[in-house]
Amino acid sequence: MKIGILGTGMVGNTIGGKLVALGHDVTMGARAATNEKAAAFAQSHGPRARAGSFADAAAFGEIVFVCTAGAGTLEALHAAGAANLAGKVVIDVTNPLDFSKGFPPRLSICNDDSLGEQIQRAFPSARVVKSLNTVTCSVMVDAARLPGEHVMFVAGNDAAAKAEVTALLRDGFGWRTVIDLGDIGQARGTEMYLPLWVRLYGALGTAEFNLAIVRAG
Amino acid sequence: MKIGILGTGMVGNTIGGKLVALGHDVTMGARAATNEKAAAFAQSHGPRARAGSFADAAAFGEIVFVCTAGAGTLEALHAAGAANLAGKVVIDVTNPLDFSKGFPPRLSICNDDSLGEQIQRAFPSARVVKSLNTVTCSVMVDAARLPGEHVMFVAGNDAAAKAEVTALLRDGFGWRTVIDLGDIGQARGTEMYLPLWVRLYGALGTAEFNLAIVRAG
Repeated sequence: MKIGILGTGMVGNTIGGKLVALGHDVTMGARAATNEKAAAFAQSHGPRARAGSFADAAAFGEIVFVCTAGAGTLEALHAAGAANLAGKVVIDVTNPLDFSKGFPPRLSICNDDSLGEQIQRAFPSARVVKSLNTVTCSVMVDAARLPGEHVMFVAGNDAAAKAEVTALLRDGFGWRTVIDLGDIGQARGTEMYLPLWVRLYGALGTAEFNLAIVRAG
Repeated sequence: MKIGILGTGMVGNTIGGKLVALGHDVTMGARAATNEKAAAFAQSHGPRARAGSFADAAAFGEIVFVCTAGAGTLEALHAAGAANLAGKVVIDVTNPLDFSKGFPPRLSICNDDSLGEQIQRAFPSARVVKSLNTVTCSVMVDAARLPGEHVMFVAGNDAAAKAEVTALLRDGFGWRTVIDLGDIGQARGTEMYLPLWVRLYGALGTAEFNLAIVRAG
């Protein structure tokens, strides 16, 4: 499969590297087609890995992963271009974390809106699926790093897109329990979990943790 | 122990009933000392259970549980009176859920503040501990209703108060895993988890669920 990755940070590198290892062709996109981190990704992952602009990556991908910082997400997607996203599954991995007032971050969007919803509104013909934003990137691509039946969430308006993402999460990244929260409005729930995630990160002393859901047997 | 319960709803009744069953003396308080639900609580739970005003319950309790709806919490505490709360452990079980725009609720306070923080600021000599607000009330008082090592959180500025609450959660309500998130500012994390909780309630078809934390072994 041909996959575009928007963003050159740890999340983009981890997801992009895993997808190449799974046998997919990946283009990592950045603001500038000459971005050094994207070039380094392409060089270190062999012929299946390429680098380009946001538009190059979006045009290349049959599926597009959005792995930018929250503050740069909409700008990156506008640079990618609506035409390059139309009809495609767009997996929104971002969180609207605002570090401008220091740590812990606040959210730049919450409660009555979410970054996932803003993306879907700005690109109505993209098939946006919010997912993976509730775990650190090493866990995103390898659920088995953690024991037991911990959970991943998907939220989005397009059932077929969610099914496609769920299959990729299961077969590619090892997620055995994927909960469909509903439409893209449910991105609020997973994004608003981040303040608790950040504090658990501090309390547990590791980012490699996740939630399991327990219920009466 | 003498315990005051502010609020006459399901949460107050469930916690109050459990505390009576554990051998504590409980006064349930309401806006009016003649409140019928508080009277019914007192009648149905024997001589250890009493009913009164918010001020009566707060004055009675060595520990005070705040079990009101989020929208009425500060008003109830002002009616209880700062002098009746001073120096006491005040367990804030509330969530700032706003149903005025329908279901699912939004939060009336979030991101840069929380209801737990507002309570602590309004009553600086109360020893506020945010806890129990992340599960349905049947699970609050009986963690063993759900299998495994699922978690409860505490947040508050007073370490001794958190230790006292943690002991009550463990010995009274069966909580084996209680995570100290830090100061009362961490109430934001547990309150902002509610939108995800509400959606999981819908997706799972039961309110009797909770989170477990999994981490690399």
